[in-house]
This record gives sequence, structure tokens and C-alpha cells, in this order.
Amino acid sequence: MSSAFERLQQQLKQLPGLGYRSAERIALHLLVEKPARLPELVAALQTAAVAVRRCESCGNLAEGPQCAVCADERRDGSVVCVVEHVPDLVAIERSGAFRGRYHVLHGKLSPIQGIGPEALNLARLFERVTAGEVAELILALPNDVEGEATCHYVMEHLPADREVRTSRIGFGLPSGGGVLYADAVTLRSALEGRKGYQ
Amino acid sequence: MSSAFERLQQQLKQLPGLGYRSAERIALHLLVEKPARLPELVAALQTAAVAVRRCESCGNLAEGPQCAVCADERRDGSVVCVVEHVPDLVAIERSGAFRGRYHVLHGKLSPIQGIGPEALNLARLFERVTAGEVAELILALPNDVEGEATCHYVMEHLPADREVRTSRIGFGLPSGGGVLYADAVTLRSALEGRKGYQ
Repeated sequence: MSSAFERLQQQLKQLPGLGYRSAERIALHLLVEKPARLPELVAALQTAAVAVRRCESCGNLAEGPQCAVCADERRDGSVVCVVEHVPDLVAIERSGAFRGRYHVLHGKLSPIQGIGPEALNLARLFERVTAGEVAELILALPNDVEGEATCHYVMEHLPADREVRTSRIGFGLPSGGGVLYADAVTLRSALEGRKGYQ
Repeated sequence: MSSAFERLQQQLKQLPGLGYRSAERIALHLLVEKPARLPELVAALQTAAVAVRRCESCGNLAEGPQCAVCADERRDGSVVCVVEHVPDLVAIERSGAFRGRYHVLHGKLSPIQGIGPEALNLARLFERVTAGEVAELILALPNDVEGEATCHYVMEHLPADREVRTSRIGFGLPSGGGVLYADAVTLRSALEGRKGYQ
């Protein structure tokens, strides 16, 4: 195989979910089967790289100063859901279960990996609370050591002069998943998170 | 979601093996998680689009006038394996079972889809036979109506003044696959292609 081809395959292989074979298949598709698609893909990549930036308010992807969620007047701006990454936000949006706004941290605290508070989108979160726009904060961070640490940090650094209701998203058995197939951490969370039977 | 983002996702979704979710994951990866990778990918795509072309001799991918197989003096140029697409060639190369050269048709005859002989890389194949470089032709085309029709066309249009041994690649049970799991067409081919037990 040719070397420019191999370089392209190498680049494609680094994308999430693609392995050696699927990268090869896509490279052959773009170079042999549908060569007209290659410039279109390049144009879409370049346009998106220029157009897409972070929302000034919440850190979500945006093509103007604000993202679609922050710009939507019908969303309840007083309830803010804090997520680790943009895909988490997308998943919650897809569920249709939330009508408030978001705050994307773009990571979680991890001393081992050298990720401190200054590396995350935290200062802007505390600014939003200080500005008085937040009445309720839902921490939708993962159920692991780093997620735990990040929740603690947020709780400890919330402006003291603001009354903010805070909660953490519920952990437990996933829909359709039985006790038999759940791991120990999930079962522990599900037992701790039990609700009174009405 | 933003519209440049959606256009990128749309472009990615058209690639083979990628669906809505995987396209979204890759778009977010390139725009949020690893933005440094996007220009590298664009450069690899653009370089490959310019550098990679068809081998003048066999139709395989090449970065010069000839592909790596045709340029390799150690390959047996008198045995030519005819394949439908470049990925077929790549699969045979990967098996290490063939040391001859190739001819890539870039399709198969399909009157229903309006693909006639002139749309395929056939003229060059007959030129190679006429030039006397081919002693044996192995037709490695698929076991379907179009593959069948393409084999017939090649057989009927071989230059009459040249003696060329021709064969079709064997069809039958795949390695590791039992009779129980084979479909009817495969079983028929396997029975027709039976070999005397020595």
C-alpha cells in the first residue's frame, strides 16, 4: 500500500470506535469508491473547526457567542445541570427529561493525571452562581473517585452568600437491567439510593 | 446542536460502517476532545486525495505510475488475479496466498444499475492479454449474478490469438464454518466444487 494512504489510515484509526479494518475501509471508500465525497468531508471538517466554539455561558458547543440551549428563552435558566463532557449533555438532551440549562466542565478533577480545578470550566460556574442566575444545581458527574472529588470541590467552593439547592443525579440499576447483572458499585448505589414505597 | 456540527456529522455518517451515534462521537472527538487532531486529519485527507491514483497497469491504488504490486519485480507477472474492488485485492494480499499480479475492474457488470463493460477497467485487461504478458487468469469475482455475467463477458472477449489458462476462484464452505450454518448458495457451490479424496 502507498504511504499517503497509510498516513490517512493511521489518522482515521485514531478516531474513537475505528480500528485497523474500519479505517482501511473508510480510506478506500474516500479514495476509490466515492472520491467526490472527500472534498465535501474536508470542507465540513474545516467549516466546523472554524465555526464551532465554546458557549461563553456554559461551555457547550456553539456557533455564536451562546449555544442553542442557552439561547433558548423557553429553557429554565434557574436549574443548571453540571456535566463532565459535551456528549453527556447530548445524551441528556436526547432523553428529553430535562428542560433547564447546563454547565460543561470539560473534564473532572484527577490529581493522578495532573488535572486540577484551573484546568476545568469551574470559574465560570461559580460566576454564574454569584450572578444569582442559579437556584438549583444538579451534579450529573460520574460515579467514580474523580466524579466524587469534583462534586466535593464544587460543593465546597459555592459562593457562601447564595442559596443554591444542590443534588447529585441518581445512581442505581439501569432500565431493563436486573440485579443479577449489576456490578457491586451499581448495587451499592442502588441500595443507598432506595426510595420509600408509596 | 449547531449547524456546521450537524453538517460534519452528516458527512461522517455517510462513511461505511458509521451510524448516527458513531458519527456524533467522532465529530465531538475532533471538535472538543482532540481539536489538534482535526487539521492533521484534513492534511492526511488532502495529501492522499492528491497523491493516490490508479495504477496504469492494473487499476490498484498507486502513488506513482505503477502500484507496489506491479512495481515489485519478484511477483509473477504471468498470473493475473481479476478482482472487483481494491479491498478484495487487499484481502488477498493479506492472506499471503498469492504471488502473482492483479487486475482491478472497479465494479462488475450490472444492466439493472446501468453498469456496462465500458464503465469497468476491462479494455486495459484485454490489452494486457494481447501484449502477451498473461499466461493465467484467475477470476476472483463474487458468486452472484453480476459476478457470473462479468466472468462470462471476460471469457467471451479474451483475444482469440492468445492462449490463456483461465479459472474461477473456488467457492465452498468457509474455514471454520460447518454445513449447518451455510446458506443454500454456498452449499450448492461446495457440492459442485467437491474434490476427489486422495
